Amino acid sequence: MNKYKVTFYPDNKTVEVAKDTTILSAALACGVYIKSDCAGDGVCGRCKVIVKKGEVLTQPTGLISVDEKKKHIYLACATTIHSDVEVEVPPESRMELHSGFKGIYAESEEIESKNPLSSDKIFKHSPLSTKLYLQLPVPSLNDNISDLDRLFRAIRKAQGLPVMQTGLSNIRQLGELLRDSDWKVTVTLGKRNDTVEIVLVEPGDTSNKNFGICFDIGTTTISGQLVDLNSKKILGTKATYNKQASFGSDVITRIIYAHQDEGMERLHSAVTQTLNQMINELTVENNINLNDVTCIVCTGNTTMIHLLLKLDPAYIRREPYIPTANFLPVLRASEAGIIINPRGLLSCVPGVSSYVGGDTTSGVLSSCLYKEKNLSILIDIGTNGEIALGNEDFLVACAASAGPAFEGSGVRSGMRASSGAIQKVKIDPKNFQVSCSTIADTKPRGICGSGYIDLIAAMLDAGVIDRSGKIKLENHKRVRISETGKEFVVVFKEEADAAEDIIINEADIENLKRAKAAIYSATAILVKHMNFELQDVKKIFIAGGFGTSLDIDSAIKIGLLPELDRKKFVFIGNSALSGARQMLLSAQATKAAEEIARKITYFELSVDPGYMDEYMAALFFPHTDLNRFKRQGR
Amino acid sequence: MNKYKVTFYPDNKTVEVAKDTTILSAALACGVYIKSDCAGDGVCGRCKVIVKKGEVLTQPTGLISVDEKKKHIYLACATTIHSDVEVEVPPESRMELHSGFKGIYAESEEIESKNPLSSDKIFKHSPLSTKLYLQLPVPSLNDNISDLDRLFRAIRKAQGLPVMQTGLSNIRQLGELLRDSDWKVTVTLGKRNDTVEIVLVEPGDTSNKNFGICFDIGTTTISGQLVDLNSKKILGTKATYNKQASFGSDVITRIIYAHQDEGMERLHSAVTQTLNQMINELTVENNINLNDVTCIVCTGNTTMIHLLLKLDPAYIRREPYIPTANFLPVLRASEAGIIINPRGLLSCVPGVSSYVGGDTTSGVLSSCLYKEKNLSILIDIGTNGEIALGNEDFLVACAASAGPAFEGSGVRSGMRASSGAIQKVKIDPKNFQVSCSTIADTKPRGICGSGYIDLIAAMLDAGVIDRSGKIKLENHKRVRISETGKEFVVVFKEEADAAEDIIINEADIENLKRAKAAIYSATAILVKHMNFELQDVKKIFIAGGFGTSLDIDSAIKIGLLPELDRKKFVFIGNSALSGARQMLLSAQATKAAEEIARKITYFELSVDPGYMDEYMAALFFPHTDLNRFKRQGR
Repeated sequence: MNKYKVTFYPDNKTVEVAKDTTILSAALACGVYIKSDCAGDGVCGRCKVIVKKGEVLTQPTGLISVDEKKKHIYLACATTIHSDVEVEVPPESRMELHSGFKGIYAESEEIESKNPLSSDKIFKHSPLSTKLYLQLPVPSLNDNISDLDRLFRAIRKAQGLPVMQTGLSNIRQLGELLRDSDWKVTVTLGKRNDTVEIVLVEPGDTSNKNFGICFDIGTTTISGQLVDLNSKKILGTKATYNKQASFGSDVITRIIYAHQDEGMERLHSAVTQTLNQMINELTVENNINLNDVTCIVCTGNTTMIHLLLKLDPAYIRREPYIPTANFLPVLRASEAGIIINPRGLLSCVPGVSSYVGGDTTSGVLSSCLYKEKNLSILIDIGTNGEIALGNEDFLVACAASAGPAFEGSGVRSGMRASSGAIQKVKIDPKNFQVSCSTIADTKPRGICGSGYIDLIAAMLDAGVIDRSGKIKLENHKRVRISETGKEFVVVFKEEADAAEDIIINEADIENLKRAKAAIYSATAILVKHMNFELQDVKKIFIAGGFGTSLDIDSAIKIGLLPELDRKKFVFIGNSALSGARQMLLSAQATKAAEEIARKITYFELSVDPGYMDEYMAALFFPHTDLNRFKRQGR
Repeated sequence: MNKYKVTFYPDNKTVEVAKDTTILSAALACGVYIKSDCAGDGVCGRCKVIVKKGEVLTQPTGLISVDEKKKHIYLACATTIHSDVEVEVPPESRMELHSGFKGIYAESEEIESKNPLSSDKIFKHSPLSTKLYLQLPVPSLNDNISDLDRLFRAIRKAQGLPVMQTGLSNIRQLGELLRDSDWKVTVTLGKRNDTVEIVLVEPGDTSNKNFGICFDIGTTTISGQLVDLNSKKILGTKATYNKQASFGSDVITRIIYAHQDEGMERLHSAVTQTLNQMINELTVENNINLNDVTCIVCTGNTTMIHLLLKLDPAYIRREPYIPTANFLPVLRASEAGIIINPRGLLSCVPGVSSYVGGDTTSGVLSSCLYKEKNLSILIDIGTNGEIALGNEDFLVACAASAGPAFEGSGVRSGMRASSGAIQKVKIDPKNFQVSCSTIADTKPRGICGSGYIDLIAAMLDAGVIDRSGKIKLENHKRVRISETGKEFVVVFKEEADAAEDIIINEADIENLKRAKAAIYSATAILVKHMNFELQDVKKIFIAGGFGTSLDIDSAIKIGLLPELDRKKFVFIGNSALSGARQMLLSAQATKAAEEIARKITYFELSVDPGYMDEYMAALFFPHTDLNRFKRQGR
């Protein structure tokens, strides 16, 4: 069998592959992450690469323009290797490596603090791991208990803790460590499955250096927060695309990929690489030693948690849809390939079912939905939209597969809600002038989820598109027909920080329409299933990685959210991440999360006979049934 | 630096060493275990080897006879390497590799069963690990809990167990395993530090195959027993010399050796090799798969347990004599290098102090000394003699360094209490004819501990030796003067299964006298320290690896045991091993052992001002003060 060398730039990574291998497969085999929403089906057009050298064969596709062909641009998934090849991955096809931003989350914390039930305040401070400085009495003939007993005695005296255990590696170093440090040591105590463990013993007083990181592992986006476990202060927040997105944009594609040769290994490695890179950035920026990061809490949908821990996700997608585990023991982070202190702990927020995971649990936790007296709903808008309905008496939840459009993925000019992302848009109905504001007020680089919601609402208002999403404006410099269909220019490249015009095309609008229809119809069906009317809902918590900029009016205008009294809506930012942070900071929060996960009843949308009709009816802006959106046009 | 190749036969192992390395060091470096009681000080004469080829330099020594010199026999510890060398290790210098015997322990179990308080019967059967066969209900849309929850639910239903946890490796395989096995699996549940853990999940019903092994790791001898954890039946018993004996005969020598380069690694590897070899023999002989051995309990003195777990023993011998740990968490056996099921558990019997270890705890446990109403004493005769005094109200213990003579080590014709060992001796006072009986009634191969006790008693009675241990018989074919001093022939080689005559020399008698003096004086001082008289003791439990043959009269005659009413003595065999077996079979026994270890007060002999006088006075047969042994000569 012929083997060819493929080198990828700018990563400068080389891999040997067999003839006929696709460029995308070769890239994944050597850890080069190329955008691909369709996981290699040749339909999303995200995986464009430039072949600098060598012989390739490609399938005909409308996704590559004549101009691009001339520049040797190919779809990586539809192009196979027939000699040694050199490939350049252009910036727009690369998985974003990092793009931390503090601003958004700082604001989102502000939002949370306005929530009267803000659960950060209701839980007692008792982090997953705590540090305790001890000055042990020096042993003598009259006080000659063993080193380990001496340590246990001092901890009991200081904290009155009941059960304790520790690992052999700690015991092995104990004799020398205690004597070298003159009997002054810092112990890290971890809460582990109903027992207290000595995670670590260090010489001297390091008790002021104890940090934890919480992650929300989304299908498309991973968010992380570095927390000082002593002061509860958030030291930094990052969000980046999940490198797994190279293997497909939704959980089903990933589950299928996991069953290919090395598939699980690659998916696992993609997510841990993403996490470890974020951990590195967070700790370097805050001048923190990795060894002082003693615990991690991860939340995410059930598939994401399975892939993180290398649990087989196969049975999640086969009837009767059974995950391997919803409740996981506290593990060592190193067991999942996460690099912090080698003995540091990893706790995963408990999930409910195959399609309602820990992210729903932690969202319900941090929103305090489970403490509401009145009927309330939590709508978490993401690639997997999760909707939870209930109050202090009951909780029911379902999941809606919305796709990654609201996270700025799978849409032509999409980007995450980070610096330079358009988040607010107005269109002058007379001349179709577009005015927009961006995150951090920099030159626009692309459009994020809240920007798209505003943009579509504005296009509807200005008559740029009709209720089905077709662009009806004609004979205007902003409207043109490209190889991929009709498109509307939001910002010309001259005014943008981008290589191309920032546009929205009909395919994008279709994607966004399907996403909003999935969320809306799931919400409507869930409420109906429980024999309520939408009007019965007294409070609507809106969550997601939008930052603070989500315009509820726009969201109602496009039919993403139901038409209800605006006062009922509370925007709570990334509530899944906030819940994970609470588990990091409080054992009480962990107990509460466990109770929530047990209490939530899972509702499987697809078995509801009315779901498909409801979804189809929602494929208009705002909806087929305008009676549901009576205030429209006010 | 010159490097030379040294090859050892019959092992056929080769190692490269620097010029001037001793043959003993070279042997240890490549895992060839040569007897050495003095750990290379050139005084014990146990490490004789034959240099077949090559150039060596040796120190002058009286321990090699002229005849031996001619045969190129050298002391491995006093001979250095000056070219490539080939060395043969003769049988008498090799560490015994294995010498299992069932007979002795079968009898010793019999003894135990006669003990009215036999604790095997008082503890509820609840092994360290149990197997449970489960037929799980197949999941459906109406019963769609996760695989792990399904398993937990079934276990709770079957056993009503409270807390449960399991490791990531089990969870990872769960999805496929449950489905491949048609939801019929066997779980192994382990008791681990106050929680119940799923140690293992296996397809199908393997619940009838669940085995455990208990070990008593002595300084000189290691005993092990394979137990069917379901039926409590003992399937096999083995005893062999601890390979660590190559590094010195007592705990202090080993502690010092542990601090040399690679010292700890070699000591650890020597003991785990010994254990793993015994495990292999026990399982092969009983046709048991190693994977079905799910737990191990080890008892032993504190230094032995430290070396097994690679805990630094340095502080055990430095004032104030602090061990790293007395109470150890339940570990995985693999963490200590013990090869059974890779997830199998290892529990160590809790110890009391640096010099009173888990072997004392397990001896007190199995003797039921801690339940006695009247003052009782447990004397465990071994290289480290342990003496525990007390009753249901108090327990106090001390240790006496006796040396390995009673275990047949460090004495010229010594051997362990196994097939061919002389265990009973009579000497006709008229003609000094010796008649003796051996274990398994085979031709004599050597003398074991109980044989030596009988032999010295008989030599005293017959007037072969005087009360100081000097051989006073003259002009008899059995008495002769060799290069190492005066010796008495017990069995001529023609009547023995041995290459040489079986003899006892004055150095052996001296060794045995010191050993008995150490045990006796420790017993006397301990009783005195607690303000009792020896006569106040109502019951004396005698323990040790003697088999059933220990003659109490002989032991009193030589002054090893105090002169008390013979009815007070109960011989209980290897009580340390029995206690470990009880912990293997019952969580109740484990709790009891923990309470015992906490209850025992350690008494440090060396701080008692009367100890040295008492010891010196005991260096006669039976004692300097004959008033203590009034019935002598009856």
